[in-house]
Amino acid sequence: MTRPAIPAERYAERLARVQALLPGHDASAMLVGVGPDLLWLTGYNAQPLERLTMLVLPADGRPTLVVPRLEVAAAEAAAGVTPANLDLLSWDETDDPFELVADRLGASKSRPEIQLGALGGTWGRLGGLLVSDRLWATFLLRLQAAVPDAAFGVASAALAALRAVKDAEEIALLRLAAQAADRAVSAIASGRLVGRSEADIAAEVRQRLVDEGHELAVFGIVAAGPNSASPHHEPSDRVVAAGQPLLFDIGGMLGGYSSDITRTVWVAGDEGSGPPDEYARLYEAVRRAQSEATAAARAGVACEAVDEVARRVIGDAGFGPQFIHRTGHGIGLEVHEEPYLVAGNEAALAIGNCFSVEPGVYIDGRYGARIEDIVVCTSDGPEPLNQVPRELLVVRG
Amino acid sequence: MTRPAIPAERYAERLARVQALLPGHDASAMLVGVGPDLLWLTGYNAQPLERLTMLVLPADGRPTLVVPRLEVAAAEAAAGVTPANLDLLSWDETDDPFELVADRLGASKSRPEIQLGALGGTWGRLGGLLVSDRLWATFLLRLQAAVPDAAFGVASAALAALRAVKDAEEIALLRLAAQAADRAVSAIASGRLVGRSEADIAAEVRQRLVDEGHELAVFGIVAAGPNSASPHHEPSDRVVAAGQPLLFDIGGMLGGYSSDITRTVWVAGDEGSGPPDEYARLYEAVRRAQSEATAAARAGVACEAVDEVARRVIGDAGFGPQFIHRTGHGIGLEVHEEPYLVAGNEAALAIGNCFSVEPGVYIDGRYGARIEDIVVCTSDGPEPLNQVPRELLVVRG
Repeated sequence: MTRPAIPAERYAERLARVQALLPGHDASAMLVGVGPDLLWLTGYNAQPLERLTMLVLPADGRPTLVVPRLEVAAAEAAAGVTPANLDLLSWDETDDPFELVADRLGASKSRPEIQLGALGGTWGRLGGLLVSDRLWATFLLRLQAAVPDAAFGVASAALAALRAVKDAEEIALLRLAAQAADRAVSAIASGRLVGRSEADIAAEVRQRLVDEGHELAVFGIVAAGPNSASPHHEPSDRVVAAGQPLLFDIGGMLGGYSSDITRTVWVAGDEGSGPPDEYARLYEAVRRAQSEATAAARAGVACEAVDEVARRVIGDAGFGPQFIHRTGHGIGLEVHEEPYLVAGNEAALAIGNCFSVEPGVYIDGRYGARIEDIVVCTSDGPEPLNQVPRELLVVRG
Repeated sequence: MTRPAIPAERYAERLARVQALLPGHDASAMLVGVGPDLLWLTGYNAQPLERLTMLVLPADGRPTLVVPRLEVAAAEAAAGVTPANLDLLSWDETDDPFELVADRLGASKSRPEIQLGALGGTWGRLGGLLVSDRLWATFLLRLQAAVPDAAFGVASAALAALRAVKDAEEIALLRLAAQAADRAVSAIASGRLVGRSEADIAAEVRQRLVDEGHELAVFGIVAAGPNSASPHHEPSDRVVAAGQPLLFDIGGMLGGYSSDITRTVWVAGDEGSGPPDEYARLYEAVRRAQSEATAAARAGVACEAVDEVARRVIGDAGFGPQFIHRTGHGIGLEVHEEPYLVAGNEAALAIGNCFSVEPGVYIDGRYGARIEDIVVCTSDGPEPLNQVPRELLVVRG
């Protein structure tokens, strides 16, 4: 199956949409370093290096991508780095790239109300600069020194809501990633488990994620027995035994987009040691919470309301204090991004949002359960991209 | 072979050494986010998450590691995260971790001249906060808002020189990583090359890096023919042909430490198409530059002087304008770190420094060559950790 590609014109649209938003954020420009924001705006998946790579995106005028001379060829290979979309400006080993950025800011004085003043002038009413959220402090501090009059803010203020609404190609890639993760989970859950260490199973997880089409396995939580009560458990030498739960939370990157699925199975072993009643009740509370929260995740509903649904179901079952994390997170070029399904987030879900729905219950020292799907908010309602059954699967292992 | 491990006491020493340096940098505290600085100070290889993890290291008093509740178990598993070394402070999903950090800063008023004033007071003469260089802008901007009176600087001002002097275990790990990379390069260079794409060979590079002991393959530049003139070429569908150079620049991570080796071979093919005279001259200039720069890299010598040696040899051979990058970079927990062997860096090399020596010459559109070793500065002089022969290797391919 061929993978959808994002065309150069889409990047041009994204650049223009962000530029149009900047005045509303009192910003003259956005400064985007290496990372997911740069990838979304230009298609350039740059290496994180000590040499500055930075997209200078003024509210008005042409965008400029400042790149170290050594990286010019790599930058030019990106789908959105075209002469139609932006100017490419390279710098040599002994140049000061921060001066170049400041110079670009100062050069962009085409509208009188945008007084950028990077070279000594004063900032007008659009005195803000938005920097990409993951820009390294070493770069931000040098930018702050180079443009001392500017008020700095985070790019996500303008970008996050745009990035959170996925277009058709992005949803197609997230779907392919979810399906690949589904196949990996299903294969491992139905294979031999008893007698193997978590670390050994985690190595198989990573291999299967790649075999199923991910270009990179990013994480593979495998948590057996009492370790399933630790939500972000690091796979250890603990050996899987019969008569305990086994939790998988795995994901990778496919076409630049992330997968992220969690399933908890019960390992019965040859003797058929099924789950005790309390565990079955606990699991059922998680399953219902996951199902009801997913159903609630419709356009226009507040993020915190989806979290509340999951929390109410689990609380009614008596496990409220053991549900110690938010219900979900957005997903796309980052594993965790907007929108966050968490108490206090009053933002409403929008059509095109993609996010995890992943309640869990954790009984310290004994066991836990979590179920996670990636869900797309469509005009027809929520659509889970993961399709592995959500009922408690009792496996021989 | 068992890998050397860094004991908990070493982390305690590192924390204390940094604390002792802070007043000299007019700093009351260092704030260390996820990344190599945190790893060096605590052994904690934390995931880069939107949830704040931060080591608060005051000039005076106990260090505190602030971690999201979900990550407590992972943090406690790190060798340097012990009750003897630091306090662990966890925060819940709806807490404000920046308030926790500010609170810790404000609490550390044990010496009268350290007026931290994070909670509204005034900053005294030690009014600075040093933040880890890779801290995300989204975190730095919120810290700047939480502690508005502080002057922020980069942690590398105090840390880089310490981290650049490797101890015995670190050198042992860098040696193991270099030897693993040597085996990977040697195996690939002696195998089938003609008729294969760069991307196919790069996939083998990554597999071999892991097979030889790296936990992660980080990069694998494979550049054939004219692509060898692009120093940071991204492996493409270009097929290797007889009668052209093939450049490998590959590296991974072993025990947390990086390898990084470059070799350029000449692919002669079945018909034995050897290198033309100009290429042989070009390669020999690079080889001599690499050899002489390595020999010059002794304790007390300025970094820029090592760069000058390589530049002089290549310039004398008539290829000066085609040597378009610095001579080398430090290596350790990061692939690129201090010390940088570059014009303008007057810092002197110290015993224990580890760095690449990697001159190159690039004739645009035709071909290029680079040779790179990792070198340790010892009391007996420079010692290359890579041992693959540096003469031009003509292979059948």
